[in-house]
Amino acid sequence: MAYRFLEDFAIGQTHETGSAVVHLDEIVDFAHRYDPQPFHLDQEAAQASIFKGMTASGWYTAALTMRLTVQSGVMKQIGIIGIGIDELRWPRPVRPGDTLRVSLEVVDVKPSERGQPRGIVSIRMTTRNQDDEIVLTEVARLIVPRRPAA
Amino acid sequence: MAYRFLEDFAIGQTHETGSAVVHLDEIVDFAHRYDPQPFHLDQEAAQASIFKGMTASGWYTAALTMRLTVQSGVMKQIGIIGIGIDELRWPRPVRPGDTLRVSLEVVDVKPSERGQPRGIVSIRMTTRNQDDEIVLTEVARLIVPRRPAA
Repeated sequence: MAYRFLEDFAIGQTHETGSAVVHLDEIVDFAHRYDPQPFHLDQEAAQASIFKGMTASGWYTAALTMRLTVQSGVMKQIGIIGIGIDELRWPRPVRPGDTLRVSLEVVDVKPSERGQPRGIVSIRMTTRNQDDEIVLTEVARLIVPRRPAA
Repeated sequence: MAYRFLEDFAIGQTHETGSAVVHLDEIVDFAHRYDPQPFHLDQEAAQASIFKGMTASGWYTAALTMRLTVQSGVMKQIGIIGIGIDELRWPRPVRPGDTLRVSLEVVDVKPSERGQPRGIVSIRMTTRNQDDEIVLTEVARLIVPRRPAA
């Protein structure tokens, strides 16, 4: 199913994205650009850290969660336009070689209170690795247009 | 000042990062990798969108906020290790040519309730553009070690 309007969403709807493999060179490249801390860049510093090995920046995991959601095409006709994110958590690190996928669940649908032709859809996103361990959770607040009057 | 231990943090402490200019090629490159929606990739699609022009992915703005914070060096000795983020909001779009900088404010300091040698520091981050308009706010929850007993 592909959503087009606020009226197409209902609490409890779920979707699964495809999966993506996390490559060491991609997490190091991301860290160089956006999270240049030694334990994300260097094997030795990673071993000495609380992670005991190389891990992805949490922001990389969040960005990859976004990519998988966009590529799933589920909101292609609306565009995924977020006003914000709540309760973003990284309960476990992501490591090179992990395979991640995202589950989406509609948890709230609210028309604009000011009568504007749009509303806010809240979607709980849960990103898991190949062992079904949760590596990221968040609730995305998205702007969605209402269906025009006939 | 550079933080080393939980005991170095106090509610109300503030810091300012340096600034970074947002380049069109960087936001398009980021969008290709992590948020490949037409309105982040293509001038025409961007003009036709609610943004009326090219804008950065919100995840790019979050990643750049992280880079500026790391580069400020304020937590270099601890490492910025987040358990999560609350209340992430993007109140205004980021556009090519914008210059962003981040203000940090310590809003909570909590030792572990289980007597572990660490605690959680909550830092409100506010990212502004060259016109002092807020483009991102968030509250980061960071793991910070306690000072070892003498």
